[in-house]
Amino acid sequence: MAEFEVLTVGAGEAPYAWTFGGAAPIARIAPGTVLEVYTEDCFDGRVRGVDDLVSQVCEFPFLNPQTGPFYVEGAEPGDTLAVHFVSIEPARDWAASTTVPLFGALTSTHTTATLQPPLPEMVWMWKLDRERRTCTFQARQSDLTVDLPLDPMHGTVGVAPANLEVRSALVPDAHGGNLDTPEMRAGVTCYLGVNVEGALFSLGDGHARQGEGETCGVAVECAMNTVVIVDLIKGVPTPWPRMESDTHLMSAGSARPLEDAFRIAQLDLLSWVVADHGLSELDAYQLLTQAVESPLANVCDTNYTSVAKIRKAWLPPGRTSDVHAGLRARATAFGAGVR
Amino acid sequence: MAEFEVLTVGAGEAPYAWTFGGAAPIARIAPGTVLEVYTEDCFDGRVRGVDDLVSQVCEFPFLNPQTGPFYVEGAEPGDTLAVHFVSIEPARDWAASTTVPLFGALTSTHTTATLQPPLPEMVWMWKLDRERRTCTFQARQSDLTVDLPLDPMHGTVGVAPANLEVRSALVPDAHGGNLDTPEMRAGVTCYLGVNVEGALFSLGDGHARQGEGETCGVAVECAMNTVVIVDLIKGVPTPWPRMESDTHLMSAGSARPLEDAFRIAQLDLLSWVVADHGLSELDAYQLLTQAVESPLANVCDTNYTSVAKIRKAWLPPGRTSDVHAGLRARATAFGAGVR
Amino acid sequence: MAEFEVLTVGAGEAPYAWTFGGAAPIARIAPGTVLEVYTEDCFDGRVRGVDDLVSQVCEFPFLNPQTGPFYVEGAEPGDTLAVHFVSIEPARDWAASTTVPLFGALTSTHTTATLQPPLPEMVWMWKLDRERRTCTFQARQSDLTVDLPLDPMHGTVGVAPANLEVRSALVPDAHGGNLDTPEMRAGVTCYLGVNVEGALFSLGDGHARQGEGETCGVAVECAMNTVVIVDLIKGVPTPWPRMESDTHLMSAGSARPLEDAFRIAQLDLLSWVVADHGLSELDAYQLLTQAVESPLANVCDTNYTSVAKIRKAWLPPGRTSDVHAGLRARATAFGAGVR
Amino acid sequence: MAEFEVLTVGAGEAPYAWTFGGAAPIARIAPGTVLEVYTEDCFDGRVRGVDDLVSQVCEFPFLNPQTGPFYVEGAEPGDTLAVHFVSIEPARDWAASTTVPLFGALTSTHTTATLQPPLPEMVWMWKLDRERRTCTFQARQSDLTVDLPLDPMHGTVGVAPANLEVRSALVPDAHGGNLDTPEMRAGVTCYLGVNVEGALFSLGDGHARQGEGETCGVAVECAMNTVVIVDLIKGVPTPWPRMESDTHLMSAGSARPLEDAFRIAQLDLLSWVVADHGLSELDAYQLLTQAVESPLANVCDTNYTSVAKIRKAWLPPGRTSDVHAGLRARATAFGAGVR
Repeated sequence: MAEFEVLTVGAGEAPYAWTFGGAAPIARIAPGTVLEVYTEDCFDGRVRGVDDLVSQVCEFPFLNPQTGPFYVEGAEPGDTLAVHFVSIEPARDWAASTTVPLFGALTSTHTTATLQPPLPEMVWMWKLDRERRTCTFQARQSDLTVDLPLDPMHGTVGVAPANLEVRSALVPDAHGGNLDTPEMRAGVTCYLGVNVEGALFSLGDGHARQGEGETCGVAVECAMNTVVIVDLIKGVPTPWPRMESDTHLMSAGSARPLEDAFRIAQLDLLSWVVADHGLSELDAYQLLTQAVESPLANVCDTNYTSVAKIRKAWLPPGRTSDVHAGLRARATAFGAGVR
Repeated sequence: MAEFEVLTVGAGEAPYAWTFGGAAPIARIAPGTVLEVYTEDCFDGRVRGVDDLVSQVCEFPFLNPQTGPFYVEGAEPGDTLAVHFVSIEPARDWAASTTVPLFGALTSTHTTATLQPPLPEMVWMWKLDRERRTCTFQARQSDLTVDLPLDPMHGTVGVAPANLEVRSALVPDAHGGNLDTPEMRAGVTCYLGVNVEGALFSLGDGHARQGEGETCGVAVECAMNTVVIVDLIKGVPTPWPRMESDTHLMSAGSARPLEDAFRIAQLDLLSWVVADHGLSELDAYQLLTQAVESPLANVCDTNYTSVAKIRKAWLPPGRTSDVHAGLRARATAFGAGVR
Repeated sequence: MAEFEVLTVGAGEAPYAWTFGGAAPIARIAPGTVLEVYTEDCFDGRVRGVDDLVSQVCEFPFLNPQTGPFYVEGAEPGDTLAVHFVSIEPARDWAASTTVPLFGALTSTHTTATLQPPLPEMVWMWKLDRERRTCTFQARQSDLTVDLPLDPMHGTVGVAPANLEVRSALVPDAHGGNLDTPEMRAGVTCYLGVNVEGALFSLGDGHARQGEGETCGVAVECAMNTVVIVDLIKGVPTPWPRMESDTHLMSAGSARPLEDAFRIAQLDLLSWVVADHGLSELDAYQLLTQAVESPLANVCDTNYTSVAKIRKAWLPPGRTSDVHAGLRARATAFGAGVR
Repeated sequence: MAEFEVLTVGAGEAPYAWTFGGAAPIARIAPGTVLEVYTEDCFDGRVRGVDDLVSQVCEFPFLNPQTGPFYVEGAEPGDTLAVHFVSIEPARDWAASTTVPLFGALTSTHTTATLQPPLPEMVWMWKLDRERRTCTFQARQSDLTVDLPLDPMHGTVGVAPANLEVRSALVPDAHGGNLDTPEMRAGVTCYLGVNVEGALFSLGDGHARQGEGETCGVAVECAMNTVVIVDLIKGVPTPWPRMESDTHLMSAGSARPLEDAFRIAQLDLLSWVVADHGLSELDAYQLLTQAVESPLANVCDTNYTSVAKIRKAWLPPGRTSDVHAGLRARATAFGAGVR
């Protein structure tokens, strides 16, 4: 019978981190620990109505508060953290979104720099119905109210980066971070390469839902109550963030220009398939070309993120899926009250 | 009762075109005509076994043979062609794919130029089972045979370009062309802005299936028997290729770097929603951000192509869907033998 | 003693071409012919004062009128055209520049698509003093009048493209075209690979001067009286446009993103040095890295153009510089009235 | 009469820093202090012969050792550091360069990821002659020995970054860092925006010379004896690194893709000209377009760096050049032994 070590971090019980790396751990956990955590929204909860403009109520760089970091005992560079998302549930019955001046895909930015003035700043408040599993869009300047499916996810999941660096929680890269992929949902295991002792895992930036690419730069931003199991795979490095669901393997590449993010994700998934499923590089290249799904994550952050995704049923049996299966079983047991 | 003008172009019955623009029309058709056409595969049918290397059996630029062009009577710049795909069926029980030296996403190319030698050239022959709706991958250097779902599509659909240009059939751009999107499947209406009198529509490059991004640059390439209805919308311009299915509106942007293809597709879909569904620009920006799917088409061609896709059920009633609905009904009638 | 065949094409004596490829030759010339031609400015001479807004007085795609094309007898695919610029002299004592809506580097564009409105359209008229070799900038909204050195060049020089294509005169690519590099000045020989019989050479888009990158998209646009000698090198292909001055070898790469244009130019120059000057690839890579100048040409056109430039004195003796030296001598003889 | 506070940091006298931010200051200095420092080469001095391959003798991320950081008293966010390069002199009579696997512009990399194997690793040793002001290239696989002009510069100059971040010394960005621009030579003042108290300035990565773009990723790498005067401008922010010589103003933008680095540099230089020289935005846009030089710095680092450069003589009188002039005078006085 399974037993669980459980660590709960409720709202306001620990200071938030604003970076990956560089923040003191709020707790030490053993591999296999269940974390039950509250995560604040990317605005630190300060956008609560349509008049709360980010440029007025938020202070850069205090965005994307991270719950954590957690020091995972025994984690060393060259290992992999396996973070299984047991559940991700909105902590409030509302969420917020907004345009942000000079941020997003359909505006010039500080790096895609032009002489044009920024777009207007506008806030949308979304209503969440956790029973009906919907989030409701209410247009501001038009006559439209529409229910979209709730599809909760974490925009930001990561560990301390390599190379002695400390990165803002707004950055996605090889250490994870602000990947902003809708694939980071309950039922998924996220694999992250460990770069420093203890890994220093944290998460935040919950989204009630998000389109692929996060076009305006801001999703349906929402505080979350989230349960993850954090496990450790010793001696196995993971160069880029990977995800596994019951049906798919996924790699997430982050870079600019966007084709480089695509290349990273495709090559990493290919390497995964070669290493664990016994295909030659060229056979894997061919199979992937015809079989891959390539959902964009974000085309707005410091790096853009592209996901490559292949159906496990189309691959020869692989070695790593045992980790996901084991965590899935533990998640089920945990959900069934087996503690 | 519906009546149909039908034009059939069988294999070898007309010369192929290798460009959009610049080729003499093979026929003049009235708007509403049903085209029953054979399209040859992108290799002009020359890759028939694993020893048929493209660099030996094909001659650049004679790739992507186009069936057409068709001169659509009455079509003028500022109009839109509505091409409804009634059916796309493999014409053979096999298809071919390959690596091509210095072409594809996971290799340097003639423009992403490096000092490294090209990857090896290798051909894969795929078996198609039109009854079971599968295509079978047989690995060359590994022990794997796997059935993937047949999902036939046309890689190349387009009209003569604007600005007095003639473009190779390998190029995707505002005139359509080599978009290589899996969304171009049966049941979909493709809208193309008319740039020259008669529009000069053609199609080719059938794929038995293709992953998103067409990673190695070559899909499961297959001759097709295809039925389309070609209609004309007078006085309505269409700046970038659009598609409509029973459930979704889609725009296809083509450019480099890939983020520009993304921007074009997202902004064009936004503009469509604003113009036809009555949302303000900022409301549409917000709704799209949370609702859009962004399936990559190709990340290997002269321009990369990104598709933006939104569920029609989530939009206010629009004006243009009548065209698709009408063509869908006609396709059904045609399929039912109402000629 | 040298003798010259001379062909003169004055203002209005022949129709302009608006494309590379696809236009009928205005004359056939023998290799070695001296062309004395008038080229109209990129606006077809329609911007003559600050109230002549491009969006009102010009009609897309009738921009960048080309003088030509000239059919060069004996030119075949696989050959190289050597075009030596004897002189480029402003044909008027004024020139024009302007912002163009959604065109240029510091604005969103039709492909770097954003929701922001375009920048204001504004015209600047420049005064040229051909004796003092200056062009005078007169600010419109500020208190500044300043003389800059006259440095006349042609933005557009090219031949018909490969692959059956016809490209707008606004496009730079492997066939040359709208390269917009300030290096295309008198004293330089431009080498262009021949793609079709007769090569179909044309030129236009004179600039009284231009900064590197052509930031706003429009240089000091000026009609020119230009003298070139057009020679033919049989059996030598040239993959990308090259230039040679008395002191430097140069390659011009055109692509997006800009790093690809850079890669093309650097690799082409490296290949040139390897083929003609006997260096190994890696030695050439090292020497180039420390010795190359990399002046940007344009970061605004359909493709961006980057130039790689190396001092001939730093290379082992090469085989091709004889062509430039020979043309230089002929230009001197021609200038001295030896006809 | 001028007096100077002088701080000398010789070889091995202080630990090196490997990051911007995150390292403890090795000294506190008052604004105006003259620093006489030794900087080790980017390999930490470990590549001393052609058999010293970076992959064997160096350990990532211990590259680009920084001399510093220096805590500048009184420096606060919103201020600007003015670092005047009095002299940069090679500390040895040799320098080293090399290819590095999967690093550089003409190879695929970890982000421009392909399936191709890396290029061979090869080292070149350069001889420096400080009297004759030359550095001598000796080809490895070819018959060439050639003297190039010595043109010493620092690849890496920066302060602690904003947003709580710590960046590897290999990264160029808004905080400066690994800009790798040949413009960072003696006689130039570099302006850097202060992001944290004390600024935490450091420098390293001397190059005996470097081509524009640093094509293979590695310049003529050399330990240096360098003298800088570090001054502080209170209350003036500087968003991107700027440089000023006796003749030019320069801005350095760092980003990917390269066109964004170009945009940043051009817009920052434009803003500088608008703010300090009284031009309107559009007038500055026009003047820059015709007058700017745009020397590429690097097209190989984590971000690419592009420099925009305008001749001061072509601008109306500005307010900031007094800083450079003052530092220039102090440098002269210091050189003349006025201490």
